[in-house]
Amino acid sequence: MDDLGSRLVVGIDPDPRRLFAEDSLFRKAYPGMSKDGLLDEFCEAAVEAAQDTACAVKPQSAFFEALGVSGIRSLAKCVKLARSKGIPVIMDGKRGDIGNTAAAYAAAYLDPSSELAADALTVNPYLGPDTLGPFVNAVKQWEAGLFILVKTSNPGSGVFQDAELQSGGSLFMKVAEVVGRLAEESTGACGYSDVGAVVGATYPEELPLLRRTLPACVFLVPGYGAQGGTAEDVRGAFNEDGYGAVVSSSRGIIFAYERLGERADRESIREAMHRAAVTARDDLRSVTPSI
Amino acid sequence: MDDLGSRLVVGIDPDPRRLFAEDSLFRKAYPGMSKDGLLDEFCEAAVEAAQDTACAVKPQSAFFEALGVSGIRSLAKCVKLARSKGIPVIMDGKRGDIGNTAAAYAAAYLDPSSELAADALTVNPYLGPDTLGPFVNAVKQWEAGLFILVKTSNPGSGVFQDAELQSGGSLFMKVAEVVGRLAEESTGACGYSDVGAVVGATYPEELPLLRRTLPACVFLVPGYGAQGGTAEDVRGAFNEDGYGAVVSSSRGIIFAYERLGERADRESIREAMHRAAVTARDDLRSVTPSI
Repeated sequence: MDDLGSRLVVGIDPDPRRLFAEDSLFRKAYPGMSKDGLLDEFCEAAVEAAQDTACAVKPQSAFFEALGVSGIRSLAKCVKLARSKGIPVIMDGKRGDIGNTAAAYAAAYLDPSSELAADALTVNPYLGPDTLGPFVNAVKQWEAGLFILVKTSNPGSGVFQDAELQSGGSLFMKVAEVVGRLAEESTGACGYSDVGAVVGATYPEELPLLRRTLPACVFLVPGYGAQGGTAEDVRGAFNEDGYGAVVSSSRGIIFAYERLGERADRESIREAMHRAAVTARDDLRSVTPSI
Repeated sequence: MDDLGSRLVVGIDPDPRRLFAEDSLFRKAYPGMSKDGLLDEFCEAAVEAAQDTACAVKPQSAFFEALGVSGIRSLAKCVKLARSKGIPVIMDGKRGDIGNTAAAYAAAYLDPSSELAADALTVNPYLGPDTLGPFVNAVKQWEAGLFILVKTSNPGSGVFQDAELQSGGSLFMKVAEVVGRLAEESTGACGYSDVGAVVGATYPEELPLLRRTLPACVFLVPGYGAQGGTAEDVRGAFNEDGYGAVVSSSRGIIFAYERLGERADRESIREAMHRAAVTARDDLRSVTPSI
């Protein structure tokens, strides 16, 4: 964040239906290349676009899983490539399960000896606070990070998350309380914790409320860019020190080359991705004046 | 269910920390074998134990993911092996995400052309009803099944799931309402839907309530066996016709050989797993009198 003056996270979402489509400009730029090869090239281009613009990359596990064993091989490559360049990796897996199963997910994505080891993992809290324990232990043991879903960016997130409880407040505020307690127990000298929260950019009125409730949590803010959230919308995610949030953009950056039309080639594709990342980084700087 | 008179699901949970431990009897029975080889042998033994005793197997994705790319290769093998023997496979991934990401998860585990294609998938509802849509569409398109988490078996499941809402009822009942609506839209001639629910055996008082609320849903009931749930506890999961639920047991079956002590060898390990599956199947028959 400090080195690059950036709060941008480049989301790596290689949606197979878009990347491998008949009329995919990316595919056309690499004639005859296998799907595996295309996927690796795509990830490389995304990591390159992030290198001087983003404080992290966030591969979306689902799109790799959809390609089976070779998809996971590409995911491992992508994670290693980013980390070899010093870019922190947030694995977006939204995992969650009980007891030793949660511990296995934590090991899969946070144990440095794992082939898929990232720097942080997104986690789903529905199963309960006891199921978050193994993840919290893992980030302590391996000096990694966690982003627990609190308020997500999709249009229907309110149906369960905004449900008002008899005990007062909404469900997502109850989840936030639990996350806040876990975060307090592991807050470092910098004032921030290795336990963070996912809070969507598309609900700007909730951001300042959650910011006050969770002062030590770093927020991972999806929904900026293609999903409709603006820089102004995410202003409330930051503390006054200009820290406390990282903002993710995926499609707006990694598919920026689609605007090139038929003149897209390997070089202009990479340039378009990089230019979009620069624009997003600068746009986010406008709401974090301390940078 | 009818062919075998069984409501048992054999959970395949190859916890690496147990399977590959120094003193693992399984490992000792296969001296010099690689981890990949051991994992494949373990899955084969579990599938064999299920073949004449269980109406499905349920591989727990986390334990395969923890072994990286080769773990996923073993998962693909395990799924293919079970299906080649006519055993339905429930992929226990508890996935959940928004829009096209949810569609990618559904494709990964339900599209018949995927390497990891199973017959059903477990799904987490926290993100909201709109995020369940792509999964529901997928099971319609591919004649597959879905089990949406409603009330999970872990001790802390109540903290969020049992939260009482101002609108009346608990959060899990609100989730159940949404699941019920999705299930009704896709109920077949048999009276059951391809949209099911996960309801833990460890909360027997909730089972009859959910059974009444969700008449068309097949319940996937974890928590029976090693987690403490008894056959009596799961009685309420069934409809009067003896259908409506399948009951999962993992550790009690697949690690049954640990009781053999040092005399465990390849054959006695398989026998112990199979014997435990027979016992569980028969135990469950005692609460489904129509079988």
